[in-house]
Amino acid sequence: MNTVDIITKKRNGDMLSREELEYLVMGFTKGEIPDYQMSAFLMAVYFRGMTREETVDLTQIMKESGDTVDLSDIRGIKVDKHSTGGVGDKTTLIAGPIAAACGVPVAKMSGRGLGFTGGTVDKLESIPGFRTSLSEQDFINQVNDKGIAVIGQTGQIAPADKKVYALRDVTATVENLSLITSSIMSKKLAAGSDAILLDVKCGSGAFMKTREDAEKLASLMVEIGNAAGRKTMALITDMSQPLGMAVGNSLEVEEAIEVLKNRGADDITELSVNLAGFMIYLGGKASDSQEGIKMARGALEDGSALKKFREFIAGQGGNPAVIEDTSVLPHGSCRMDLTAWQDGYIVQIDAMKIGLASQHTGAGRETKEDMADLSAGIRLQHKVGDQVATGDIICTIYGNDPDKVQKALEEAIKAVKIETVRPHIPALIKSEVYSDEKNCCTVHRVDNNTESDCLQQ
Amino acid sequence: MNTVDIITKKRNGDMLSREELEYLVMGFTKGEIPDYQMSAFLMAVYFRGMTREETVDLTQIMKESGDTVDLSDIRGIKVDKHSTGGVGDKTTLIAGPIAAACGVPVAKMSGRGLGFTGGTVDKLESIPGFRTSLSEQDFINQVNDKGIAVIGQTGQIAPADKKVYALRDVTATVENLSLITSSIMSKKLAAGSDAILLDVKCGSGAFMKTREDAEKLASLMVEIGNAAGRKTMALITDMSQPLGMAVGNSLEVEEAIEVLKNRGADDITELSVNLAGFMIYLGGKASDSQEGIKMARGALEDGSALKKFREFIAGQGGNPAVIEDTSVLPHGSCRMDLTAWQDGYIVQIDAMKIGLASQHTGAGRETKEDMADLSAGIRLQHKVGDQVATGDIICTIYGNDPDKVQKALEEAIKAVKIETVRPHIPALIKSEVYSDEKNCCTVHRVDNNTESDCLQQ
Repeated sequence: MNTVDIITKKRNGDMLSREELEYLVMGFTKGEIPDYQMSAFLMAVYFRGMTREETVDLTQIMKESGDTVDLSDIRGIKVDKHSTGGVGDKTTLIAGPIAAACGVPVAKMSGRGLGFTGGTVDKLESIPGFRTSLSEQDFINQVNDKGIAVIGQTGQIAPADKKVYALRDVTATVENLSLITSSIMSKKLAAGSDAILLDVKCGSGAFMKTREDAEKLASLMVEIGNAAGRKTMALITDMSQPLGMAVGNSLEVEEAIEVLKNRGADDITELSVNLAGFMIYLGGKASDSQEGIKMARGALEDGSALKKFREFIAGQGGNPAVIEDTSVLPHGSCRMDLTAWQDGYIVQIDAMKIGLASQHTGAGRETKEDMADLSAGIRLQHKVGDQVATGDIICTIYGNDPDKVQKALEEAIKAVKIETVRPHIPALIKSEVYSDEKNCCTVHRVDNNTESDCLQQ
Repeated sequence: MNTVDIITKKRNGDMLSREELEYLVMGFTKGEIPDYQMSAFLMAVYFRGMTREETVDLTQIMKESGDTVDLSDIRGIKVDKHSTGGVGDKTTLIAGPIAAACGVPVAKMSGRGLGFTGGTVDKLESIPGFRTSLSEQDFINQVNDKGIAVIGQTGQIAPADKKVYALRDVTATVENLSLITSSIMSKKLAAGSDAILLDVKCGSGAFMKTREDAEKLASLMVEIGNAAGRKTMALITDMSQPLGMAVGNSLEVEEAIEVLKNRGADDITELSVNLAGFMIYLGGKASDSQEGIKMARGALEDGSALKKFREFIAGQGGNPAVIEDTSVLPHGSCRMDLTAWQDGYIVQIDAMKIGLASQHTGAGRETKEDMADLSAGIRLQHKVGDQVATGDIICTIYGNDPDKVQKALEEAIKAVKIETVRPHIPALIKSEVYSDEKNCCTVHRVDNNTESDCLQQ
């Protein structure tokens, strides 16, 4: 096989065999094929796309390029939930304990990631004593004993994807459905769960700006997951404004506890219950997603989810007192309020700009080496659609460096629009994407009750 | 400016400014922009193309990336002739002296190149004593005194093109008209002539396999040359079989002398006379190309071109006795004949395969470091259309290593087809491409007398 021939074939619109893709991707990963050939190939893929079959192959090849996690010692159907990334998304901290309370084992490896805030692992580490690095055996024991464990990623998961993604990022070849899908799904398949629930965000704070693009991506990911033998479903959810009221590590833990006490904001509560409901269904504890959602709501109302969260924290060495007294969490010493400059309705809280503001506080990481400030972030007092009077606090910025907090405030101001007319509020859960026995994918539009077969690649 | 933004812009089909192209190409040439970004860009160009304006800019940028030759001390209109490359193409050795005999100064810098045989410089060096490295002053003096000089390339001509081409070669991004055009024309513009005659080959032995592709490339090159202020024309000529009877360095010099004695094969004589005729017209010594061709034919018939060739050789230190006695040229010690295996007509002598056979003899270079064997090559006894009887010699392979000659013979066998029906012989000169004062390009199909405005990019 010859690299130039493989690039030429893709460039000419021909389909590549599994062997050809493997030769290219593994050769590149091992450093035998230079990055300039890989980037030319990736640009050809941008223009020519990949078939469903090629995408399945690429996903498998990247999955098999590194370690794969073996969860077979954990009893039950293990369900992984994955979000494509948004602002204020702390649903793992809520839907995980709910699903676990309903009997679904939650064994999650989570990243720290780059972005607006830290990852789930950072958030959990804001709880005093919480340990996110457990041995494999301790991890498995904790799931079998308590029903839920979350640890930082260990080993080398999909190193081929890591190397390919780094190249895509600097060669304008990120935006291709097959490449995005194989990047996400190779890591999910390596993580060893039996079923996968995808939360595909759309809107200003998400990678996919439109519902249609999010549906296309979700459909392909659902197909690839099912083709790999993992029952996979997806929800398309709104990310035009931040999710819930808190953005930042300790602030999000605090909000998660509020939600688990069943007194959280509507949107984050609703989404968490839905995600948990689908996890319960995928985990075989409910006969359909509606029953799962009902069970999830029950676990919130009867306090069993909160109880599970307490066991989860205590099991990983964290101080469970945090549930009664969130003052044990770190809070930024420096605070500034953004107040309403006029009377009216909040018509926009741009998720992307609030995300940037959060990053300015130091809550996120810009490079892998950065330390996330676990005590920094933004707490909203209002959501889109709320009526405010001049001087009302819209949000509070938390941090430890007055300059950073000031910079974050300036960004936050840009995120907010106040007008005199009450705005339309976008639906939180837009679509459900699932596939039947024949791996035929269906998009069900929840907010207007229409269905469509998914768009094939 | 930002490299990813520039790649994205081209990827999305937007036009790049001269500043953006310069940032990218010069950044890459200086090593500041990595090759993996350049190759992604080149693949985007493959799919999106470049406008005429972008192609003009890219050509200028690459031309200006290195040294440019100043021929202003040479009297008269300097005309450069450039062939896109074929098998057995020794027209520079013939058309050069003819044009010079008709008063057009020929000041040519020529490459050695990689390929089936050596370049013009290698061919000339097969003449005992011939020197192809002259000082700039000696070069200029020789042209002013004798009317013609040919030297090896000096200085750094278009280093940006050199670096970009090396990358295109290994990333399947060679086949784009704008990239091919800017690569050729940047070097031609840097070489300092006032006018440029392009010989664009088409057929199995050429880069452009079809007449239509050759016409498109020629049109764009003619436009770019004229846009840069150099009067530029092109001929589209056949390269389905080798040109003339000889392929190889000393063998081609021998054939050039035969042609200059006006007893050469029809095709090479005809093409040389046409090219010289257009050079004479472009050099301002004839009022149109037809008059130029008439003058060229006269210079062959009256011996003035042969006389000019003798002066040219002697002026650069070569032994002029070669003209009377070609045994002073090196000839391969090992020879093998390919003979006809049946009675019939030769219907094919595939140029590409004869080229490969020539390379097997050692006449060409596979890497820059290789030495070309100046005494090796192939001499045809027949052309397509000739009738042969079983046992007739079709061609003779020359070399110094019996194994190489054997390998070349095996390749040559594949090139030749003999059938019982007389074949159609493709026209040698297919089209003339020129542009009017408004730089509107016209393709004149010589063989069937139709005209068309050139296809715009």
